[in-house]
Order: sequence, then C-alpha cells, then structure tokens
Amino acid sequence: MTKILRVNMTDRTVKYEDVPEKYRLMGGRWLTSSIIVDEVDPTCHPLGPNNKLVFAPGIVTGTNAPTSGRVSVGGKSPLTGGIKESNAGSNWSQLIAKLGIKAIVVEGYPQDDKWWGLHITKDGAEFFPADEYVGKGLYEIFPGLFERFGKKVGIMTIGVAGEKRMAMAGVCFNDAENRPTRYSGRGGLGAVIGSKHLKFIVVDGEGGPGVEIADKDLFEKGRKKLTEALRTHDITKPKGTLNTYGTAALVNVLNEAGGYPTRNFRQGRFEGAATTSGEAIFEGNKQRLGKELYNHGCHPGCTIQCSNTWHNPDGSEAVSCIEYESTWALGANCGIDDLDAIGKLIWLCNDIGIDTIETGGTIAVAMDAGLAKFGDWKAAIGWMEEIRKGTPLGHILGNGAATTGKAFGWYRVPGCKGQNMPAYEPRAVKGIGITYATTPMGADHTAGYTIAPEILGVSGKVDQFATDKADLSRNFQHSTAFIDSSGHCLFIAFAILDIPSGFEGFVEECAGVVGTNWTADDVMRIGKEIVDKEVAFNRAAGFTSAHDRMPEFMKYEKLPPHNVVWDVPDATLDAVHGA
Amino acid sequence: MTKILRVNMTDRTVKYEDVPEKYRLMGGRWLTSSIIVDEVDPTCHPLGPNNKLVFAPGIVTGTNAPTSGRVSVGGKSPLTGGIKESNAGSNWSQLIAKLGIKAIVVEGYPQDDKWWGLHITKDGAEFFPADEYVGKGLYEIFPGLFERFGKKVGIMTIGVAGEKRMAMAGVCFNDAENRPTRYSGRGGLGAVIGSKHLKFIVVDGEGGPGVEIADKDLFEKGRKKLTEALRTHDITKPKGTLNTYGTAALVNVLNEAGGYPTRNFRQGRFEGAATTSGEAIFEGNKQRLGKELYNHGCHPGCTIQCSNTWHNPDGSEAVSCIEYESTWALGANCGIDDLDAIGKLIWLCNDIGIDTIETGGTIAVAMDAGLAKFGDWKAAIGWMEEIRKGTPLGHILGNGAATTGKAFGWYRVPGCKGQNMPAYEPRAVKGIGITYATTPMGADHTAGYTIAPEILGVSGKVDQFATDKADLSRNFQHSTAFIDSSGHCLFIAFAILDIPSGFEGFVEECAGVVGTNWTADDVMRIGKEIVDKEVAFNRAAGFTSAHDRMPEFMKYEKLPPHNVVWDVPDATLDAVHGA
Repeated sequence: MTKILRVNMTDRTVKYEDVPEKYRLMGGRWLTSSIIVDEVDPTCHPLGPNNKLVFAPGIVTGTNAPTSGRVSVGGKSPLTGGIKESNAGSNWSQLIAKLGIKAIVVEGYPQDDKWWGLHITKDGAEFFPADEYVGKGLYEIFPGLFERFGKKVGIMTIGVAGEKRMAMAGVCFNDAENRPTRYSGRGGLGAVIGSKHLKFIVVDGEGGPGVEIADKDLFEKGRKKLTEALRTHDITKPKGTLNTYGTAALVNVLNEAGGYPTRNFRQGRFEGAATTSGEAIFEGNKQRLGKELYNHGCHPGCTIQCSNTWHNPDGSEAVSCIEYESTWALGANCGIDDLDAIGKLIWLCNDIGIDTIETGGTIAVAMDAGLAKFGDWKAAIGWMEEIRKGTPLGHILGNGAATTGKAFGWYRVPGCKGQNMPAYEPRAVKGIGITYATTPMGADHTAGYTIAPEILGVSGKVDQFATDKADLSRNFQHSTAFIDSSGHCLFIAFAILDIPSGFEGFVEECAGVVGTNWTADDVMRIGKEIVDKEVAFNRAAGFTSAHDRMPEFMKYEKLPPHNVVWDVPDATLDAVHGA
Repeated sequence: MTKILRVNMTDRTVKYEDVPEKYRLMGGRWLTSSIIVDEVDPTCHPLGPNNKLVFAPGIVTGTNAPTSGRVSVGGKSPLTGGIKESNAGSNWSQLIAKLGIKAIVVEGYPQDDKWWGLHITKDGAEFFPADEYVGKGLYEIFPGLFERFGKKVGIMTIGVAGEKRMAMAGVCFNDAENRPTRYSGRGGLGAVIGSKHLKFIVVDGEGGPGVEIADKDLFEKGRKKLTEALRTHDITKPKGTLNTYGTAALVNVLNEAGGYPTRNFRQGRFEGAATTSGEAIFEGNKQRLGKELYNHGCHPGCTIQCSNTWHNPDGSEAVSCIEYESTWALGANCGIDDLDAIGKLIWLCNDIGIDTIETGGTIAVAMDAGLAKFGDWKAAIGWMEEIRKGTPLGHILGNGAATTGKAFGWYRVPGCKGQNMPAYEPRAVKGIGITYATTPMGADHTAGYTIAPEILGVSGKVDQFATDKADLSRNFQHSTAFIDSSGHCLFIAFAILDIPSGFEGFVEECAGVVGTNWTADDVMRIGKEIVDKEVAFNRAAGFTSAHDRMPEFMKYEKLPPHNVVWDVPDATLDAVHGA
C-alpha cells in the first residue's frame, strides 16, 4: 500500500497519508502537477509560506523497467512564476518508490534560522539538524553524508544557491557514483526548498516493500518490448550515439543546421563547435586515458547509459557529466571553446547547486550587456564564486538571465516566461520555438522535443524552417507529459517513436504496474490532461497568450548563417493550447 | 499652430509634424497615452529600440491658468512592464507649450556610446554633445547648464541612474530656483530615455508664440472661478495646509488613522511620525531660521505653493523639498525618524535621479530582507552611493523593490505590477488599495486618490475600512486622468471636489483653450476613455485580472494597530475596469 509523505517545515512534523483515489494511477509529473494544482494558490509567492514542493517517482520507477529511475519535482517556480516540473535520474527515486512512497509533499515555513535534513527509512521519517552542512560545496559534503548514512542511500539536496533562495538553484540528487551531479535543474525549485530550510532528504531503501505491480504479465511483456527497442535503435543502443558520445553528440548536428545558439543567441553557428562536441569529449578522453571510454548510466537499470565523464590531461576525473546542454550553455553561448574550461564551469554548477542551462544563459546575457567579453571563461569562473559567496553580483546572476538583464537594463534576454532558452535556436528551428513559447514550463526543450523530427529525422523528417507546427509541438508536449509521468527518461522517445513495438511495450509496462488497459490513445489523453491542468494553473497565476511569445528581439534581429527571424504567427502559438 | 516634435535617436534627426486631428483636443496624459497606444507595440521591451518616450504639456499649460505647469511623460515602463504616465510641475512644460509644441516624441536607438542633449528654441531644435555631463551628480551640473543656456531655460534631464538604465530612474525637471528637484519619478521612465542616450532637453521659450486660446472669454471666466476656489479652500489657500506644512501635513493624519506604512509595511503607525511630519518641518525651519517660512511653488503661476525647503541647523539650505511621500518613503517605511537624515536621502535621490518613493520602498525591502537594520540611515546613504557608482548592489537597488526582493529571494514586497506602494496602507484604507491594484499605472496613489474622502473628508467622508469601493476608485481614476491631461496639478482636486464653482471653472478653462463646450460629463467620459485605453494596452502587454491584486502577504499578515488584512473581494477589484 503506497502512501503520500507530508512534511511540514513550520512545526517539523511528518505524516504518512493514504493515497486519494484520484491520484491512484498517477506518478511523476502527472502527480506533482496535480498536487500543486489541488493544493497551491496559483497567486502565492513562490518563496513565501504558501508554496509547496512535491517529489514523485514515476509510475514504473523502482521496478526493473529499463531507464526508469526518474523523479519529478514540482512546485510554483520562482524563475517563471508558473507551475514547474523538473525531473532527474537517480537511485533516490527508485529507493523512494521501493519504500512505498508515492509522493513527498514539503510544505510550511521555517520559524527560525535552523536547517534540517529528513532521513527516511522503512521505519519512518525523522528530522536531523543540518546546520553543519550549510554554506559548503556539495562535492565537499557528499562523501561525509554517505559515510554517515550508508553508501547505498539516495540523497536529495540543494547547494548554497538554493540556501540563498536564488532562482537558478536546482534540486540535486546523487548519481550512481554518489556524486552530486543529477539535477532537477530548471525553474529554480532549489530556491523553494531553500526557503523552507530543508537541506536534505536522505532515503535508505533497505527492507522496503518494493513497488506493487498489478498485472505482472502485462508489465513483463511490455518491459521486454521496450528493452528490445532501446537496445536496437541507433541512438539508444549500446555503443550507439548516446552511449558513445553522450547527449553532446548533438553539438555538430545542430551547428551544421545553423541552429546552435552562439554568444547569447547572436549567431546560429559556433566556430568552436567541433572542439566542444561529444566527439571531442570521446576523443579527448581516449587520448588522455589511452583507451576508449563509453558512457555510464545515471541510475541502476538504465540501458541507454549516456552519462559521460571528462578527464584531466593526467587522466584524473575532471567532471561528470558534460551534457549537450551544458557544453553549449557554458561553451558556445558564452563564446567559450575550451572543454577543460567548460568542465570546470559544470563542476562549479554542481558544487554550488545551479542549473547549467540557466547559468550559461545568465553568463551570456551578462557578457552581452558588457560585463565581460564573450569567451572570457576566467571571468565566468569568477562570477560562479560570486554566486557561491552570495555577493550582490552573485545575487543578480544567481537569479538567472532575466533578472540579470533587468539589473543591467539589457533587453537581449533570450527566454520565455523568465526561463532562459536551451540549446536550440528557435529562429532556425521553428517547432522547438513553438514549444519554448507555449509550454507552461517556460523555455524548455524537454517539454516538447520537436528537434526529433525537425533535425534528427526521428519519426519522420520535417523542414526546420516551416512555421506551421502547432500540432507537432502540441503532440510532443502531450506525449512528453506522459513520459515524464511514467518515470522513464525522455530519451526512450527516440526508440519508441521509431519502433512501434517499443511504444507498445512502454504503454504496457505502465498499464501493468497500475492495472489498466491503457493504449496509445490514453497516453495522449492523459498527456493532454496534465498539460491542460498546468496551463490552467498558469492562467490563474496571471499568464496570458501574451506570455506565449518569443522575446521581441528575435522578431527583428536576423540570425546568421540563415539570416532568419522569428516569424511564426501569433495565431499558430495560440492554437497550441488555445488562447 | 501647434506641432508635434519628433526626435529620432537612431540618426539624430528632428521633425516638426502637424498635429493629427485625433490629437487636437488632447494634452498631458491623454496625449502621451494616446501616442504610446498608437505607436508602441505593447509587447516591446521597455529598454529596447521600439519603446518611445512622449512629453506633453497639459491642455492649459502655458496659459495663466492657476497651478497648471505640469508635464506628462509617457512610455512603456521598465518597472511595471505596462503603460506609464508620470507628471511633474516645472516651467519646462510651460516653455514647451509657449513654443507651440504639443508633444515631443523621442524614438529610435543609439548606434554608439555617445550622449546628446537637445536644445529647443523658437527657431528649432538642435542636438549638442552631452558626454561631458554624463556620470555626474545633477546638483553639480545644473549651475553650469543654466550658465550655458541662460537662466530662464527649462531643463529636462536624467541622472546617473537613468544613464545606467535603472528602473527606478526618474525624469528630472528644474524647479523655480533651477534646482534638479521636480520629477516625473514613477515607473522608471528615466531609464527609457537613458536607453536612448538623450541626456537633456533644454528649452528656451524666448520669442515663442504662446498658447492659442480658442475662446478667451470662457477661459477667463473659468480661470477666475478656479483661482477663487483654490484661494478659498482650507487645504489650498495661502497659508493654508499645503502652503504652511506642505504635503507632509499628511503624516500625522495618516499615522492617526493607522494607515501610515511603517518598516516595509509591517505596521500602520510610526512612533517617529511627529518628528518627521509637516509640522516638524515648519517648526524646525522656524527654529533654524529664526522666522516662519511658508512654502513656494514648483513653477510660475501656482497659487497653492506647497514646495518646502528644509534647512540645516546653521540655516543653510539642506534640500527642497520634503514631500509627504518622501519623508514617509525614506522615513517611516525605513524606520528612520530623523528629518536631517531624510533630507540627505532626498537630496541624494535628486542628485542621482531616482524616484523617492521607489527608493524608500527598495531600502525598506532590503532592510526587511536582512541587509541592514530598520532605522540605519547610514546604511541607506551607503546604498545610495552604490546606486550612483553602479556597483552590482547598486544595480539591484536601482531597479527597485521588486527586483531587490527577487535578487534576495524575499517575498515581502509591497507593490502592484512591479511598482512599490506609496504612503497609504491598503489594509487600513481599502479604497486606495483598490486604486493600487487596478490602476494601469502600478501601485500609485495619484491615479485615484480616494484618500480624499476616506481620510480627509474631502467630497464627503467614507469609512476607511469599507471594502465596497469599486465605484469610488473608478470615479477617482477617471476624473484624475482628465486632471492629468489638463496640465493642472492634482492638488486642485481638493478645491474642485468641495467647491462646485471651482469644478465648473476648471472645465471652462480647458474648454476655453481648445474651443469646446465640455461639461462635467465630458470630464468623466474623457477620463474613462484615457484609462480604458491604458488598460487595453496593458492587457495586450500580458496583464490580466490576476495582476490587479495585492501582494499575497497582505492577505494573511495582520496590520497593527487595527489588525486588519487585505480583504477586498477579487470581484470588487475586477469590477473597477472589468475583468
């Protein structure tokens, strides 16, 4: 029997509650967004006493379904002012699920300056004082925590940026090697948990009952089909694209397409792309280690295994991992073409507890506004230390690109709903721009990854410059919402879009766990239900169709090399979710 | 024949254009808001190339109508993100009107780092290089400017805060003694003109044609009635309330009513009210000068004369002037009870070019967030120098209370639409709260000053705690929009609300200038037209009824001494302009 664990930070009490029938089938984003919609006033201040933070493993998380160790974190975002779901892969989520916890709801507000951790075991949840860990880097405190609580626990935490309630603060989870590197990074939810003075949720899965599976045969049938698809598709198979080059395999692809945002979205092609690409990471490691290094998983049971590790010239570990988004955000977008510098910046993001995408976007805006020259990675490293120390400049930067633009009176801020854009130029790839503009999440590629057909030819190929893609974006947004609820990594999408039996298996797995007869239609129905719910929350929070728009400068600044502007009609944007 | 002067900062050209028929009757706010609505995309970035700034004298400005030397400044606000009109009293406006200029429209965007001034005479308008004046305090550069251009010119300028595009930057005009003290302060329009690199508009009225008056008899009849009313009413008559104690006469009144916001809106009564009141200013000056000092006007032809000057212990001038809003913003709201300290802070605001209300609100939020203790005026002075220098902290503070709250993750920000509230506690005086929430201007008392009946008993007395005041606020908002268009100071409202012949005279004056047969009905009709136009602009910019709300904390934090929360129903707010 699964439970909802309610954690109150006003009086520091915990309560295990029965799962209401309306939440029975839900998991992941479906559940976090539903609880936020049901319990949080859309007009509340994201950092005030009335916001809540919800953690939920996906529907199949904790089972042996492949690549399914994701956790959704939900709340009202201090970055966007709207509802937010951000997910990460970590055994933390699997352990929570195995303890029979369907969701953790953190609410209330601290009455003093003290910080707390929560230690969850099969016997219950207990607070422990956490003041001794506050103000320190996450790489510094992680070994001691695993020493204290056991090597096999999972840890959720925030870095100093979250402690200081900065809106680019992420929610950190340990990776498979117990490093502080897996982030629900987007939307600043780390600041929300910081406002509640909850420094850790440590979970010990030992002796937990495990995840109940209603229809084991159906689940097993589905699991095999999906696993087979993942092991077959070129992108997701062992020694395939992701396993070899990681997500950074995309660098050269997007650069070639002229859709690789460079120097705060001033160009669509970066002259330093090749030296900061997935191929460069693979070759660099090979040279420095004297052997080929394939990637590893971020949690047990992942068959894709896309997480890389970058090494120093002497073969020692530099950082794990350099994702496509990170090498772009802290590379091309800042005019930085040095993988070692990018690796240092990523390490600092992990240590301080900030989202690499928003961090890179913020550095780029600051450079564009004249605070340093593009390419000056030493200045960027200095700024990271300002964030860590919480200097005034650190408080500007730590609150993201929009606040940085505001503070320095700079209008070239490439974001939607206060969240900076990720690594796809919307002027050159229109569908992803439609997703940026219309998803309730703020500019977010994972909310409706139309890049799959627009650039990668997954599920067919569509013209990257075509503007009539309201349906395409909407379909991706709906299906993604269900994937985000399943507990699977979004990267299963490559295989399930191209291989019909993989898609069937994916649906059967989920249906098997909860005991339904879901089909592909249900995936889209439920996905729509989730997104519509999120859109309604945002509308109640004050968002209108005027917020489903691109930043103004993209409408009149031509992007090289294709010299394109943002020309998707407003009516197309309004057609996605209805104006 | 009046003209519109169009100033293009892209190629630095000027053009005198005929006034379109649709603008013929307009002046002041009516004209600035109409031009902004007609020419500016509501979704443009306020500091980007597509915003414009419009200056317009009122309908009767430049005539000998009493107390009519106001100028409206309009644009899209970088503080609120909505349309803005902010007006000030200065001979600058009268001189512009006498040169036959109905409005100045500043547009375009600089192509380099150079700064410019515009010198307008009867013979035309010419640019002059202004780099030598940039980065300096306004008190430092004003004497030299009047030396250069003549003692009788009017000067519009921005301070260093506007140069740095800070969202609390005001638009400064000279006072009658050629000090840099009269501000269109609210809404950060100084940053807009800063983004365009226009440092000055110097106007020399010598030899101008004067203001055409279509029906001189009607005008003269009206002028006499209005003048008589102003000279009769207790608040506006010579040696009356305003002439003796200035606007700060309100301190003790609001404090007594429990509606005087104290320490970032934590209390409604300030123990230091008496020592920072209008009476204290009058008595302090008397003591320091050895004689009674009555107030002076901010422009020629004002019969009210409410501007005070505060003096040092040795009798030398400290600052002019200490308005009610300023003594409150930099006094009670920051827990500061020392008039000399308040005077210094006001002087710094004038010198740097920032709005005293937003500055005080920002200091208060910073203190509330823990950056200094309430009452620490030395810290506040230090912060002013940070703004002047443009340090990172200065950039946070210089962008106002909302940005300061955002940067430091602090949720107690008492503003509406990004603009901090002025000196009336909405929990204790509900009607003004309805105005704050619903005016298109962001929290602004002057947009619908229901304090008149709620506290002062002008035009009858209503219960300050009654919540059913949608009609009251709307009527004030509409009538105010017309007063703001007439060129009269809002303070004529006391007399024209209580003395029917004064109101008649006011309408006749305006009708006499433009040659219409306007009545009281037309005042309300035109006022509604103006406000509806502004509301529509904001809706197109993305504002919804969710933005016509009080900050969340006022709904659950009880305000002493009356222990009241904000309890006006949302439906009442939505009834003001329609949801």
